[in-house]
Amino acid sequence: MIVILRHNVTDEKRDQLINWFKSQGLGVDVSKGEYQTILGLIGDVLSLDTDMIESLDIVQATRRVTEPFKRCNRKFQPDDTIVTVGGASIGGGNFAFIAGPSSIESEEQLLQVAASVKESGTDILTGGSISSKTARHNLQKKNLAELEHLKKAKQDVGMPAGKELISVEDIPNYKDLDILIIGERNMCNYPLLAAAAESGKTIILKRSVSATLEELLMSAEYIMAGGNKDIILCERGLRTFTNETKATFDISAIPLLKEMTHLPVIADVSRSTGLSRLVRPLSLAACAAGADGLMIDVHNDPGSARRNGGQAISTEAFGTLAQEVRKLREAMK
Amino acid sequence: MIVILRHNVTDEKRDQLINWFKSQGLGVDVSKGEYQTILGLIGDVLSLDTDMIESLDIVQATRRVTEPFKRCNRKFQPDDTIVTVGGASIGGGNFAFIAGPSSIESEEQLLQVAASVKESGTDILTGGSISSKTARHNLQKKNLAELEHLKKAKQDVGMPAGKELISVEDIPNYKDLDILIIGERNMCNYPLLAAAAESGKTIILKRSVSATLEELLMSAEYIMAGGNKDIILCERGLRTFTNETKATFDISAIPLLKEMTHLPVIADVSRSTGLSRLVRPLSLAACAAGADGLMIDVHNDPGSARRNGGQAISTEAFGTLAQEVRKLREAMK
Amino acid sequence: MIVILRHNVTDEKRDQLINWFKSQGLGVDVSKGEYQTILGLIGDVLSLDTDMIESLDIVQATRRVTEPFKRCNRKFQPDDTIVTVGGASIGGGNFAFIAGPSSIESEEQLLQVAASVKESGTDILTGGSISSKTARHNLQKKNLAELEHLKKAKQDVGMPAGKELISVEDIPNYKDLDILIIGERNMCNYPLLAAAAESGKTIILKRSVSATLEELLMSAEYIMAGGNKDIILCERGLRTFTNETKATFDISAIPLLKEMTHLPVIADVSRSTGLSRLVRPLSLAACAAGADGLMIDVHNDPGSARRNGGQAISTEAFGTLAQEVRKLREAMK
Amino acid sequence: MIVILRHNVTDEKRDQLINWFKSQGLGVDVSKGEYQTILGLIGDVLSLDTDMIESLDIVQATRRVTEPFKRCNRKFQPDDTIVTVGGASIGGGNFAFIAGPSSIESEEQLLQVAASVKESGTDILTGGSISSKTARHNLQKKNLAELEHLKKAKQDVGMPAGKELISVEDIPNYKDLDILIIGERNMCNYPLLAAAAESGKTIILKRSVSATLEELLMSAEYIMAGGNKDIILCERGLRTFTNETKATFDISAIPLLKEMTHLPVIADVSRSTGLSRLVRPLSLAACAAGADGLMIDVHNDPGSARRNGGQAISTEAFGTLAQEVRKLREAMK
Repeated sequence: MIVILRHNVTDEKRDQLINWFKSQGLGVDVSKGEYQTILGLIGDVLSLDTDMIESLDIVQATRRVTEPFKRCNRKFQPDDTIVTVGGASIGGGNFAFIAGPSSIESEEQLLQVAASVKESGTDILTGGSISSKTARHNLQKKNLAELEHLKKAKQDVGMPAGKELISVEDIPNYKDLDILIIGERNMCNYPLLAAAAESGKTIILKRSVSATLEELLMSAEYIMAGGNKDIILCERGLRTFTNETKATFDISAIPLLKEMTHLPVIADVSRSTGLSRLVRPLSLAACAAGADGLMIDVHNDPGSARRNGGQAISTEAFGTLAQEVRKLREAMK
Repeated sequence: MIVILRHNVTDEKRDQLINWFKSQGLGVDVSKGEYQTILGLIGDVLSLDTDMIESLDIVQATRRVTEPFKRCNRKFQPDDTIVTVGGASIGGGNFAFIAGPSSIESEEQLLQVAASVKESGTDILTGGSISSKTARHNLQKKNLAELEHLKKAKQDVGMPAGKELISVEDIPNYKDLDILIIGERNMCNYPLLAAAAESGKTIILKRSVSATLEELLMSAEYIMAGGNKDIILCERGLRTFTNETKATFDISAIPLLKEMTHLPVIADVSRSTGLSRLVRPLSLAACAAGADGLMIDVHNDPGSARRNGGQAISTEAFGTLAQEVRKLREAMK
Repeated sequence: MIVILRHNVTDEKRDQLINWFKSQGLGVDVSKGEYQTILGLIGDVLSLDTDMIESLDIVQATRRVTEPFKRCNRKFQPDDTIVTVGGASIGGGNFAFIAGPSSIESEEQLLQVAASVKESGTDILTGGSISSKTARHNLQKKNLAELEHLKKAKQDVGMPAGKELISVEDIPNYKDLDILIIGERNMCNYPLLAAAAESGKTIILKRSVSATLEELLMSAEYIMAGGNKDIILCERGLRTFTNETKATFDISAIPLLKEMTHLPVIADVSRSTGLSRLVRPLSLAACAAGADGLMIDVHNDPGSARRNGGQAISTEAFGTLAQEVRKLREAMK
Repeated sequence: MIVILRHNVTDEKRDQLINWFKSQGLGVDVSKGEYQTILGLIGDVLSLDTDMIESLDIVQATRRVTEPFKRCNRKFQPDDTIVTVGGASIGGGNFAFIAGPSSIESEEQLLQVAASVKESGTDILTGGSISSKTARHNLQKKNLAELEHLKKAKQDVGMPAGKELISVEDIPNYKDLDILIIGERNMCNYPLLAAAAESGKTIILKRSVSATLEELLMSAEYIMAGGNKDIILCERGLRTFTNETKATFDISAIPLLKEMTHLPVIADVSRSTGLSRLVRPLSLAACAAGADGLMIDVHNDPGSARRNGGQAISTEAFGTLAQEVRKLREAMK
């Protein structure tokens, strides 16, 4: 870390600060410039409160030199992490389709969609959604029913399954599923991150619509500090001033994350825009940009879906898209 | 709600849709324009899934005519709600200072700050903070210790106290406090909102850095649907491209919220920018814009605070500021 | 247009407003809802000042039903516009590479880059840049020198050429070039748009970093109203809170624009992020999303470029990328 | 400037870079950390292309230590600049009201508004607006007519006057006015900034809706480099995801700019939100935050204004507001 001192600082005050840093076990390099003196701190600076240091009278600003995340940092693990779950692999060249209906209407419907997407090449089943429009009691009831349906579909069609988790208390109910999905609203819900880490299950961690990439990686770091390394990062769009889509899909996040971390990176191309007609172009674009997988809302009859009908594509459209994605990936080899 | 049909829709398809709306108990007004036909839906349209309707082949777009929130809507309750908690009142012309250290160092320090801010006119004590840098186990331990200190300080100096809540499991530990603070990251944490509502305690609900005003009010609505009307809304800044401050304080949110809802509206002027030197101008500005209260991070020795030192002001600075705020409010009468 | 009246409006006031709309030559459909009355205006509503209407005491809000742009609207021209310039075609299935160095170092260097990118399949040459760091006098001098170099290179290698235009007074100096590029900062510079339109040259219109798609199309509309239809739209990123890239490339803009307008849509993949190592993934992604062309900053020796060295790729890298793009486009057929 | 090298850099490559910096006349301090070596550059680093340096293989990142603006930097001129124009003073404790109708309907109407706002204490008259809805020819004609009306009103009521300038060619037509207003869309229109600087007139420079404070100051710097120091900075809102207002007024910009620069800072409280009912709370808030002046859209009959009717307040409302502002400023002394 670099500490930039104000230009009128006395030698005495400067030396007091230097000595304080040294008392924290840090090395200090001093560089005197024309207008300002700069301190270069050497050692474990991650635990320093930069806000506090910046608030000191004699300090003008601080600048970090190294990233504040270590476990998920590609610098310290150059090779791709490959997450393996229920027979599916993702990362390190392994690509996965994660598909299913965000609107689960019935067991039959879910089975039908699951069978269809599996036939089209889907690796991981997902389904269900959390809505603010549902009262708490009904929310839990609906969630439990959807978990049952997913469990059944998973067994019947034979593939791993995952679902969004929003409550620590709910974790025992997810014991038959393979993957816990942390939605964008819970990216910084630390009790939930900690409990999910402890569960030992694979985690899909979605980027908050207002998070920088570093903040996403800090949440992954928090999970990894809990002993769980099976994390799949998911880009699903930013909140910006654009008004044509629900969120602005940040395509650059894919290559940037692949550079910053060794964890697999996927794209939720349905929730990011909320528009089913953008699922195809965004899926192809995300693959072209290097995504390790796609998460897609697929419904047997999108026009009559009870929820999120506007973002789901039909099982037929998914089948065609999966072929196009494979063709594109083949061409890019 | 208005439903705008595409311009090439057949009469048959249009009538099918109209009949479906009617079967949902809605009245339908039909208006034929030059290029488009528009349906005006009359009745309880809040439960309709606009996404699904917009995904229909024959629909171009929908436009809402009424706000999706009712309980907190000023249209249905023109008079200000006055929230009364532990002797303090806020709203309807009652102004409150909510102050205390986000960095609680010890019981003694908290008592000292509490006594000082009370003398300066503070109505509600607050303190403590949640940091992503703390591991889960330590997070809970630290929180419990801070709750104990707050309980002691509250009794000693004699004023109501509140603290941020991040976990449903923690609620029993807050039984001696008066106010639960829902931080910006949890504005859409529905299990937490529901549990907080059930607690019966007064709730300070902070706007997420990426939430519209309508979304903030939808979260208030969710709490009110749980039977709890003692809600204080809090603006604390938006995530934007600006890089000089942690968040962009949205001053317009204050008069707009006062127009949209009858609930009290306060401003967290410390967390919004993260810069202690902006606390004074933002406090005065928020009051001038009509805020019902201010939430301020006050520390006995900001330069040596273990956390968030950069945003706290000293007890002396707070004393001066409180006087300036009162003077400004007097001048505005 | 829909006009939503406040719910306590008297019949007299309502009828006054209706009569005023009728006096403007509009038809008015009246729809009485439970809480509100809604007026549907039929006819040419584009000239109405919606701000003024919304400011009336009896009006709560207005909602537009049709887009405010006509000439570039795909509704009124379903077929793709194909822009042809100096032998190159773009749009309607025709893909174009637009490449060259944003840092022109000398005539020799530009000739070298131009020859190389042409061999790699580039259709249109571009080069030069406008920097705020240059004083006005030097800015003009530098621009004139760059124009001379481009003219020479264009003739020598035989391909059409374009350059950014920032001043109405400069237009005569662009007479030997084929394309005027309107940079993102000038998207709403109306005198410049009007003068560019009058020049009769092909125009590449870049989206401002803070413009909605509708606003971009309104600027295209302004040019088309000046009698010039040879417009190529260019997405080059939005200003958001992200801090890893200069701007957030809005990949969804490509399919959305292709839907909203018949004009060709290209992507400036260099300026959007400012990072040369993202040029490859973004180029492939933009093609996968349906772009009609790519604008790429190519330099013979990016490491020693005097300006924007960080965003340019080498001529070798461009050659490889062009092949990959062609392969991807082939696979997507 | 700080240059952070990648951690695997050879001594030879490092020394080459150091020697290159020295050849540019810079001093170089070397600080070896655990993982990285850091170079501290001493001297005139403003002319270095940081993008190019960051693109070098051996460089990980650069960090600026000093601001890139000098002439308007408060560090180099601690005292407030007081801009004096036609008898009005602004800055250094001098507060100014800048008012008038953005919709000029006729000479009579402008005279009436001008006389009224002068009586209410306005120091500078302004009026007129630029709309994208007007074709180029009509735009110029309308502007010339408005300039004539402003000239007449200025003489009749006896106060300095200013108007937005959008075209270099137009400058001669502004010779009878005192102030050139550079709108937010032209903040980076360098030819316009340079020509405005040369005119010698006082300039109100508005912050672009997508500009950081540093970028605003860089534009001020560009004008000052042209020899013109009579600059008034104006905050008028940012483009963000909020949808209740046209722009998000950045209240923190006022105290921050006052800290960064010695130039006066005013607030355009009408254009920022576009809502007349927010003019009062935002005016009071901007004053409380330390603004040196307010720019307000005032109309004799806002409900019938041909343009921007939704943002203007009436002359009566302005009279009351001006009194409230004075009372608030009195209380804050």
